[in-house]
Amino acid sequence: MTGQQNVSSGPADPRFFTRSGPFEAQVLADAAEATLVSPREGNMPTEGYVGIAPLQIAGPQDVSFLDNRRYASLLENTKAGLVIVAPAFADKVPAHCAALVSTAPYLAWSRVARLFHPKTPAKAGIHPSAYIAPTAQVDPNCEIGAFVVIEAGAEVGPDCVIGSHVVVGQGVQLGAGCRIGNHVTLSHAVVGERVIILPGARIGQDGFGFAVGPKGFETVPQLGRVVLEHDVEIGANTTIDRGSVNDTVIGAGSRLDNLVQIGHNARLGRCCIVVSQAGISGSTVLEDFVTVAAQAGLIGHIRIGAKARIGAQCGVMSDVESGADVIGSPAMPFREFFRNVAVLRKLAKKASGSADGGSGKE
Amino acid sequence: MTGQQNVSSGPADPRFFTRSGPFEAQVLADAAEATLVSPREGNMPTEGYVGIAPLQIAGPQDVSFLDNRRYASLLENTKAGLVIVAPAFADKVPAHCAALVSTAPYLAWSRVARLFHPKTPAKAGIHPSAYIAPTAQVDPNCEIGAFVVIEAGAEVGPDCVIGSHVVVGQGVQLGAGCRIGNHVTLSHAVVGERVIILPGARIGQDGFGFAVGPKGFETVPQLGRVVLEHDVEIGANTTIDRGSVNDTVIGAGSRLDNLVQIGHNARLGRCCIVVSQAGISGSTVLEDFVTVAAQAGLIGHIRIGAKARIGAQCGVMSDVESGADVIGSPAMPFREFFRNVAVLRKLAKKASGSADGGSGKE
Amino acid sequence: MTGQQNVSSGPADPRFFTRSGPFEAQVLADAAEATLVSPREGNMPTEGYVGIAPLQIAGPQDVSFLDNRRYASLLENTKAGLVIVAPAFADKVPAHCAALVSTAPYLAWSRVARLFHPKTPAKAGIHPSAYIAPTAQVDPNCEIGAFVVIEAGAEVGPDCVIGSHVVVGQGVQLGAGCRIGNHVTLSHAVVGERVIILPGARIGQDGFGFAVGPKGFETVPQLGRVVLEHDVEIGANTTIDRGSVNDTVIGAGSRLDNLVQIGHNARLGRCCIVVSQAGISGSTVLEDFVTVAAQAGLIGHIRIGAKARIGAQCGVMSDVESGADVIGSPAMPFREFFRNVAVLRKLAKKASGSADGGSGKE
Repeated sequence: MTGQQNVSSGPADPRFFTRSGPFEAQVLADAAEATLVSPREGNMPTEGYVGIAPLQIAGPQDVSFLDNRRYASLLENTKAGLVIVAPAFADKVPAHCAALVSTAPYLAWSRVARLFHPKTPAKAGIHPSAYIAPTAQVDPNCEIGAFVVIEAGAEVGPDCVIGSHVVVGQGVQLGAGCRIGNHVTLSHAVVGERVIILPGARIGQDGFGFAVGPKGFETVPQLGRVVLEHDVEIGANTTIDRGSVNDTVIGAGSRLDNLVQIGHNARLGRCCIVVSQAGISGSTVLEDFVTVAAQAGLIGHIRIGAKARIGAQCGVMSDVESGADVIGSPAMPFREFFRNVAVLRKLAKKASGSADGGSGKE
Repeated sequence: MTGQQNVSSGPADPRFFTRSGPFEAQVLADAAEATLVSPREGNMPTEGYVGIAPLQIAGPQDVSFLDNRRYASLLENTKAGLVIVAPAFADKVPAHCAALVSTAPYLAWSRVARLFHPKTPAKAGIHPSAYIAPTAQVDPNCEIGAFVVIEAGAEVGPDCVIGSHVVVGQGVQLGAGCRIGNHVTLSHAVVGERVIILPGARIGQDGFGFAVGPKGFETVPQLGRVVLEHDVEIGANTTIDRGSVNDTVIGAGSRLDNLVQIGHNARLGRCCIVVSQAGISGSTVLEDFVTVAAQAGLIGHIRIGAKARIGAQCGVMSDVESGADVIGSPAMPFREFFRNVAVLRKLAKKASGSADGGSGKE
Repeated sequence: MTGQQNVSSGPADPRFFTRSGPFEAQVLADAAEATLVSPREGNMPTEGYVGIAPLQIAGPQDVSFLDNRRYASLLENTKAGLVIVAPAFADKVPAHCAALVSTAPYLAWSRVARLFHPKTPAKAGIHPSAYIAPTAQVDPNCEIGAFVVIEAGAEVGPDCVIGSHVVVGQGVQLGAGCRIGNHVTLSHAVVGERVIILPGARIGQDGFGFAVGPKGFETVPQLGRVVLEHDVEIGANTTIDRGSVNDTVIGAGSRLDNLVQIGHNARLGRCCIVVSQAGISGSTVLEDFVTVAAQAGLIGHIRIGAKARIGAQCGVMSDVESGADVIGSPAMPFREFFRNVAVLRKLAKKASGSADGGSGKE
């Protein structure tokens, strides 16, 4: 560590985050749609709570929460003044502590944290260094960062925040309330409302399409678009290719993590989740509420049924039924995968054991 | 979907794509090097065909095609006026439809699509915001985008299109007709003609090289280059490190998809294909016409023979012979991999089955 | 190759690299902390050595080295004047060749190469196109590239080199001697000294956190930071999300390759190595000196003990003990993994062999 000091003073470093409050417990309970339980001993701070903090470092004016059973042991020693917990942990809350009991404690936590640290709204204005083509239409209530490029015919709806160095390509449409991170590239795209794109994502470039010609590969024109429906979120450095003939579509409310690859003509339904470094090949369809875990890969031209869950590093080569849980490469039901692992381990132990036992050699 | 309308009106949205035509059937046949077959019933449109469209939405003035056996059922109901098909499907073409019959239907399709939607040529000119070092040489017939940086001693050949925010580093050479996407970084690189690089690719940065010293890791100077030969295409956010001593070379006509990693000193031959999220470690050699499927990983210092095919998610730890098909981690012949999968499944079923049978419990 | 010439004239192309020297053998030996052995026949060049080159192309005034046993056969035919080798190869050095014998030949090589090609120091100055917020503090001895954005309250220490198009977000701190590559995005980050970040890395964006609400997913505020300790190096297009409550921390001296994903709240200890395309999920802890090979994936909320080594493409679902070597998905000890592979191969061969033998058919 060579003498460097990185003592964490808790979340929400004021250099990076603004802060509202203080808030009284009942205000927090209302925001969280949770039940307020007073401390069994002591009182709640009359001046309210000032912020959120993890169990280990929270003080009497902080709100904390238990989100993961693994960390339950931290609860009994916390000095937090208010703790958000699931009903199962309500009687484990220390006596000095008030509690917000919720059947959805993570959601409750999220809302309380948002109350203390609200999103900063768009600051209307265009940085003087930005380049906006004369035929582009940018709503006056947008925040346009430094060195932004908005090309001919593009349309940016109200209340958008466009980060530094973003390129909004020719004809691209952005709905109201979008937040586009630094260095994002958008082309051939129609984007809904409240869409969030993190830095460095690439949306709308050529798909990977070529035919074998007499002198080498010949590029197949990629003539579709990317459609990002309302409330989609896209992670940093993720790539979404535009369609070749049909559109590539990310359904409303879906969330993609960092470094995800979406091939041309893929169609994701509503509220799908695609975790980091997963890849979905061209023309594959995900119905609604599908989850694809990290580093999983889906071959092209297949269909994943609604609410299916694709495990981490899974290699999916054929259709998956609605509601199925698959893992492994090639993909198989979770149960089968772990049974295979167990059986192989047993057989391998036996094989090496009997080899040892029988011959004295390995 | 919250009311959002994303009705696709077919490919080639005029906000994003220019359009040529109309074209008569014989012109299309010539471009496609395909055989024109008149409709068994009805006539071809005298005014020619106006565009391309998928089978489901094509109309009498559209050209469509059947590229994938999976979608054969769409052919019989299409309203398209002209369909590109392989000989095996020629007699499945509806009676009202003309056909372009080709033994390479995807290539034929590609050329017809290109005829309707030709590449826009470079519009000579330098965006006023670009920064070009005095000693850089940029051919006057290039299109240089906003906020481009071209550093000292760099050379950009004729007819190149350099997107917004591209950095062409010191001394980098670009041949004629290259198209460099937005936000690409190029350094320590020698680039041939007609090379295409999609947005966000990183070419020529330091390789991952360090030695263990007494006080921690010590960086090994990376003194090679990246050489991209003619007609190479590089996907979005792909990373190609420069060599440490020798060059990192991507052979003529090779195509890399998005989010691919190429380590220092790797050498790819001609017309190799590397699909998204695959990684090729340092000093590994691919001979000509090798295919590496998505998410595959190749260890360093190995050699992959010409025309070998590395399957998706494959983990290659040793040399692969020319023409071999391998998959799995560790890599093995396709046939062996799927045999292993089948045998393990059978053994695991038997193991759990006999446990069930024997004890009545699972 | 269509006539293109890519003849490599050896490392350190003068278009891209500066060069010092010549150096006498003893100077090189001192830098390398190696033992100089004179040639058995002939003399060392009186004017010193002028550069480094690989064994195949090095000449009498070049220094070369043997770093990998695979290439030992190149040693006997080299025309290099001086070769760096491990003691085991000292007697294989040709008679005309001087040798630098070192028990750490790669480190010795690194230092010799650095002597010929020293790092260029920061050239103090701010490119006129850069945008620096009035409240940002930039040390006058920094080199700030074109179109850089340094936001309000950010602090950049002395001797930093900030590449073109970098965004240093509000309040971000950079210690002395950092080198930030083109197009890097930094936000919500505290960065130590001598940290190197390659082009396109994304540091400090929102982690992937959301709760299921009544109308879809609700984003959980991400209120932590990213802390990069001294001497950390981060690869191109790598993504490091900031913490949700705690910080995401990369320990001193750690090195991350390209396209790596680090989830929110992850904590890496000192001198960890994470190779390209690997992913570490949220809240996972790596103790010191852990190695994670390419394309490996670690689930969230686990702990990897000091000096553990995670193999390529490994899928780690639970804690790993200090010093352990694991591979496979799910992760298991190296030895067990390769035993499983061998046993399954044997069983599968037997199964298909007996089928063949029994029925004469496959």
